[in-house]
Amino acid sequence: MVECPPNFGMATSKIYRSSFPRPEHFEFLRTLGLKSILVLIPEPYPAENLAFCEENGIELFHVPLSGNKEPFVHMDPDVIAEALRIASDPPNWPILIHCNQGKHRTGCVVGCFRRMQRWSLSLIFEEYRRYSYPKIRPLDQLMIERFDPALVRGELLKTDFDEWVEALWA
Amino acid sequence: MVECPPNFGMATSKIYRSSFPRPEHFEFLRTLGLKSILVLIPEPYPAENLAFCEENGIELFHVPLSGNKEPFVHMDPDVIAEALRIASDPPNWPILIHCNQGKHRTGCVVGCFRRMQRWSLSLIFEEYRRYSYPKIRPLDQLMIERFDPALVRGELLKTDFDEWVEALWA
Repeated sequence: MVECPPNFGMATSKIYRSSFPRPEHFEFLRTLGLKSILVLIPEPYPAENLAFCEENGIELFHVPLSGNKEPFVHMDPDVIAEALRIASDPPNWPILIHCNQGKHRTGCVVGCFRRMQRWSLSLIFEEYRRYSYPKIRPLDQLMIERFDPALVRGELLKTDFDEWVEALWA
Repeated sequence: MVECPPNFGMATSKIYRSSFPRPEHFEFLRTLGLKSILVLIPEPYPAENLAFCEENGIELFHVPLSGNKEPFVHMDPDVIAEALRIASDPPNWPILIHCNQGKHRTGCVVGCFRRMQRWSLSLIFEEYRRYSYPKIRPLDQLMIERFDPALVRGELLKTDFDEWVEALWA
């Protein structure tokens, strides 16, 4: 039986998302041929996961995010932009983005990534809802709506926008 | 603004799923570089969609399914198997599978496809729920559970199983 991490899914052909992968999921992860992993939690990465990355030549990126919580904790758009710079950079693909549950922090990063792709908010929220169910956070959605894709896009897209979008699905 | 069909998502790097795409979604679909579309509804395909396939060299497969409805309508496993033979065949990739809402018929085909990949039922149902929300049908889940992957696997997998699984994500 194949065990993939709960809440596993794909943002594009090259960008995967999931909850926190544990040793029982490593066999499945190996089939993805990952080049990098982007972790969004502030805690240190467990030794087994570090060893898994090492053994499989996977580069680890650590961008600590704290989830949005009313009224005082808000994700920093600059940190989101940093995560997006890593996730959107073709040399890092295929990449897996994860936090703990793969719902809120990962959902925010993927939502802001959709803004970079110029998706409509209604479909961005549909996707956010799909993975965060049953704990949809209005503050996450507001953050995605407020996020300015130019924070990332300008620097990142040295190539043509259309070319970059096509590479996402190739 | 990019308009993708509601309930758009990916089963693997090569297999997309969505609700019924309409002309406002064609620009987005073009970026996916589709080689084929698998339609699961019994009704004839609209002229605009036929023209879109024609213009973009997309092969159209029509496998009419009726959704599971208590107590008398049950999807025919042989028809599901026929859909899976098409969806799992690498020469048809990338392929888009769709019905009307992309919830139940598409969800059943993707669910049975996960059985072929040997996913656990708990994660198959998690994914099914994600796309069928808020209309989860127990009969769909029962059908996925009962489905015998050997109906497809024997004939299809001329190559090694592991090789085929890797190709899904490559």
